[in-house]
Amino acid sequence: MAENADTMFKNFKEHSIAEFFKKNRQMLGYAGKVRSLTTIIHEYVSNSLDACEEAGILPDIYVGITEISEDKYHITVRDNGPGIPKSIVGKALATILAGTKFHRYMQQRGQQGIGAASCTLYSLITTNKPIHVKCRTTKDSYECDISVDVKTNKPIVTNIAAMDKGPTGLEVSGEFADIKYESSDHGVYEYLKRTALSNPHVSIKLLEPTGKEISFPRHTQMLPKKPKQIKPHPLGLSTNDLVDFAQVSTSNKLSSFLVDTFARITYNKIDELRNIAPKINFDSDPKKMTWADAEALIKAFKEVKWISPEMDALSIIGEEQLGVAIKNILSPEFSQVIERKPKVFRGGVPFVVEAGIAYGGGAGKQGKDTVSGNILRFANKVPLLFDSTNCAITEAVKGVQWKRYNIGNFDEEPISVMVNISSVYVPYSGVGKQAVSQEEEIIEEIKLAVMDAARSLQKYVSHVRNKSVQESRYKMIMRYINQLSGDLSNLTGTKKEKIEDALTHIIKDKYKTIFEESAAQEEEQSPKQERKEKKSNTHDEESED
Amino acid sequence: MAENADTMFKNFKEHSIAEFFKKNRQMLGYAGKVRSLTTIIHEYVSNSLDACEEAGILPDIYVGITEISEDKYHITVRDNGPGIPKSIVGKALATILAGTKFHRYMQQRGQQGIGAASCTLYSLITTNKPIHVKCRTTKDSYECDISVDVKTNKPIVTNIAAMDKGPTGLEVSGEFADIKYESSDHGVYEYLKRTALSNPHVSIKLLEPTGKEISFPRHTQMLPKKPKQIKPHPLGLSTNDLVDFAQVSTSNKLSSFLVDTFARITYNKIDELRNIAPKINFDSDPKKMTWADAEALIKAFKEVKWISPEMDALSIIGEEQLGVAIKNILSPEFSQVIERKPKVFRGGVPFVVEAGIAYGGGAGKQGKDTVSGNILRFANKVPLLFDSTNCAITEAVKGVQWKRYNIGNFDEEPISVMVNISSVYVPYSGVGKQAVSQEEEIIEEIKLAVMDAARSLQKYVSHVRNKSVQESRYKMIMRYINQLSGDLSNLTGTKKEKIEDALTHIIKDKYKTIFEESAAQEEEQSPKQERKEKKSNTHDEESED
Repeated sequence: MAENADTMFKNFKEHSIAEFFKKNRQMLGYAGKVRSLTTIIHEYVSNSLDACEEAGILPDIYVGITEISEDKYHITVRDNGPGIPKSIVGKALATILAGTKFHRYMQQRGQQGIGAASCTLYSLITTNKPIHVKCRTTKDSYECDISVDVKTNKPIVTNIAAMDKGPTGLEVSGEFADIKYESSDHGVYEYLKRTALSNPHVSIKLLEPTGKEISFPRHTQMLPKKPKQIKPHPLGLSTNDLVDFAQVSTSNKLSSFLVDTFARITYNKIDELRNIAPKINFDSDPKKMTWADAEALIKAFKEVKWISPEMDALSIIGEEQLGVAIKNILSPEFSQVIERKPKVFRGGVPFVVEAGIAYGGGAGKQGKDTVSGNILRFANKVPLLFDSTNCAITEAVKGVQWKRYNIGNFDEEPISVMVNISSVYVPYSGVGKQAVSQEEEIIEEIKLAVMDAARSLQKYVSHVRNKSVQESRYKMIMRYINQLSGDLSNLTGTKKEKIEDALTHIIKDKYKTIFEESAAQEEEQSPKQERKEKKSNTHDEESED
Repeated sequence: MAENADTMFKNFKEHSIAEFFKKNRQMLGYAGKVRSLTTIIHEYVSNSLDACEEAGILPDIYVGITEISEDKYHITVRDNGPGIPKSIVGKALATILAGTKFHRYMQQRGQQGIGAASCTLYSLITTNKPIHVKCRTTKDSYECDISVDVKTNKPIVTNIAAMDKGPTGLEVSGEFADIKYESSDHGVYEYLKRTALSNPHVSIKLLEPTGKEISFPRHTQMLPKKPKQIKPHPLGLSTNDLVDFAQVSTSNKLSSFLVDTFARITYNKIDELRNIAPKINFDSDPKKMTWADAEALIKAFKEVKWISPEMDALSIIGEEQLGVAIKNILSPEFSQVIERKPKVFRGGVPFVVEAGIAYGGGAGKQGKDTVSGNILRFANKVPLLFDSTNCAITEAVKGVQWKRYNIGNFDEEPISVMVNISSVYVPYSGVGKQAVSQEEEIIEEIKLAVMDAARSLQKYVSHVRNKSVQESRYKMIMRYINQLSGDLSNLTGTKKEKIEDALTHIIKDKYKTIFEESAAQEEEQSPKQERKEKKSNTHDEESED
């Protein structure tokens, strides 16, 4: 009974973020041996792709995995990117929450400064080893060992040595335990295959622990449009954001601060804002803006008609590239790719959805004797292999009424639905970044993209089914013609061959007509069907653009 | 093209954990207005309950929510706990990852030192206001305002003033925006109702924004067994854990370090270990233990037969208390509560599962004209309202073959299944602590608990159904007796009344027998059925104890 506040709080302590994630590593994706390995590869490969693209280099990635003992592997990931300056390599690869991307308003795979540092931490806590880095930048060539002081979240860099000069690039290697290489749906092979699918400009080589080398070749020499940093849109701001921006402003006047800092604010718009919020002094020092002023401004922003946010920051796969990649990698009988126009969520954060449907052939999840529907999720072109139930993409795809599109049971058809969402800020639901938060606007937009692609699938499936029904009827009738001709010949005295020729001609002609008719009918019916579809879908369709 | 490592990394920066969560608040549970409000209440109430129980005080909790303007509320949470010493109140309520619970091996609701600090952060970023604290400890009575410097994760304590002395307790109040009070399944009312369900020793008063006062009274004066800090079990350790413990050891010898630090290690066991790992010098300085030694020890631990971990640290609701709470709060027609024996997961982390099933009456999710199956999830007695699809409890309950237990379609029956998992370390799948990671051993144990309770439900449901079938047959026959008696009277000349009396007597007697028989049969059949059940379940049942 004798506990009181003083005795209870005598062990009060602060902890570093590294300590926190050491204790709760499942939150970073280190949960289960297969998933932990995939997480390591995912973190390194994402960083390599971001760096190469920012430097304008077509990425060549090598991933090598060799077994040391049970559940313990040596991993190497090498790229041809720009490298990391020697002065900051320690923090870049070992300090959690350090990086260049945190406050950028730009689309990149990384956005938190956690990934690579979490790998260094994982190597330390499972094998007590540092990671080894070989790096060449345009200025420097060096190698070193890097580990982390968990209590302080500070890097420990040792054994620094010079290397021969050569083309730029970064190689990170290390020993990791409590992981397992497996060729499951959640394994490294599947992760890299999907990375190749969503990044046709990338060449990836994988050395499996068995010694087998697998190559995912580049499908295009065209580097995706380089991501551009954009200004925030006024509709995407919170009061707190606005105050934060104002406090570091170098402008003398609130008006020029707003025009310089945010997208779509012009001096004409400032005049509009003056009318809407007459109490605000737009000539005052932005640094002195009060919370109440900011609140009033945010409210005023909502009453102005703004041009949509700039979309230059978004880097998508692209309809053509995605189509080629799906054909090459899944070899389906049918595929359709949709690229939607950019939209915004939360008022001002731009995003784009791309969707592809593949049917038949290598599409769907291929089991031993079965095939089932498969959802391939991507965010900023990065495959998401885990936490599927919790994801906006899964919810949207499952929410489509597939029966309307001639897909009776999604889970029993040879179908792959691929969705990529690109944004300067993807709202992940967890630190491990494996699921997109279920925001209404994002789910809706994904649904529209998938439904759009599904309409083409519907035509294809009904065409295939119709054709096969006609064909089997035709074959059945042709089988009876011989018998019938003989019977008619007996009745009429006409030569059997003559009758058979005539009948064959009639049937062939008849079925030719039916085929033509069915094709024509299909063309006629389809728009009708689509109109009907559209009508019943009115609440789904946005009245856009 | 001109980007290189130096230009790309010129904006390289470190960020505080507060900055990280400011940007990614959805990861802490601040996603959506209703959920954000529930998260705030959850964080404060959990802290209050932990503090009261640790100090041995029966908790009286007051939650007041008043609307300031649209989506903006004033919130007060008050307890009769031990309070917080003035010297650390700032850090305790504003610094993320600061607290007393982080390295404890003890069951508490909080385990990270994030919750209350996240509320202070949320108040700051949505209203720019500090939170206000009124606190009385056994030594001190004071009030103050507390906010946080986001860039450094340091507390800002202002307006400190003395208060009159009085009984100990803590009151935290503040303004929060971007939240909404709603009486949905995910709202504050439901959260507190479920908290009362799993904490029958707690009294909670809620003032709703409408002015309505709701009381969840205490159902028992018995405080749950006080959580006890325990020593880690050798089977629950990783190599890294062992090295960490060794480095801060004050023992001279490895042997005494092991005996003093961990549960179940005795000098007899040390002798066993000497035989298993002859290369290890148990007389050496534990601080000098190498990683290889630690790895060898961990391996050796796995070959020793250990007594199970101590279970003293686990504080459960208790069969009796839970039964009373379910009856009081859900008023079901039938209920059954199961308390399982403690088990371990990951080799050495102790946990206990409790499950309750309520059927009929107020059980199930009550819609306007419908009722459906409901899963009430709890971890360390804290209700989990979000991320249900991602949770071990949901997976386990959905995995039960309900048809076996006379529940045709779980989603269409008036059934509530309640599961509470208690552990010194609950493996949550996210920082927001709303779902239990899907660990095999935990799922299995939950399933066994629920199946156990379901067997009683099965008997109840079949009894109810059987009885109603017999009753309707009896009624039907009685309806025909009058007609039949008349007909027989005409045929035989016997008086109708006499025949009717005789028949009625026979039927009543017959059905009395049938009722008795059915009751007897049921008793006879049930064990048989259960045996069969058990047989087909062999792979599920653990060969325990």
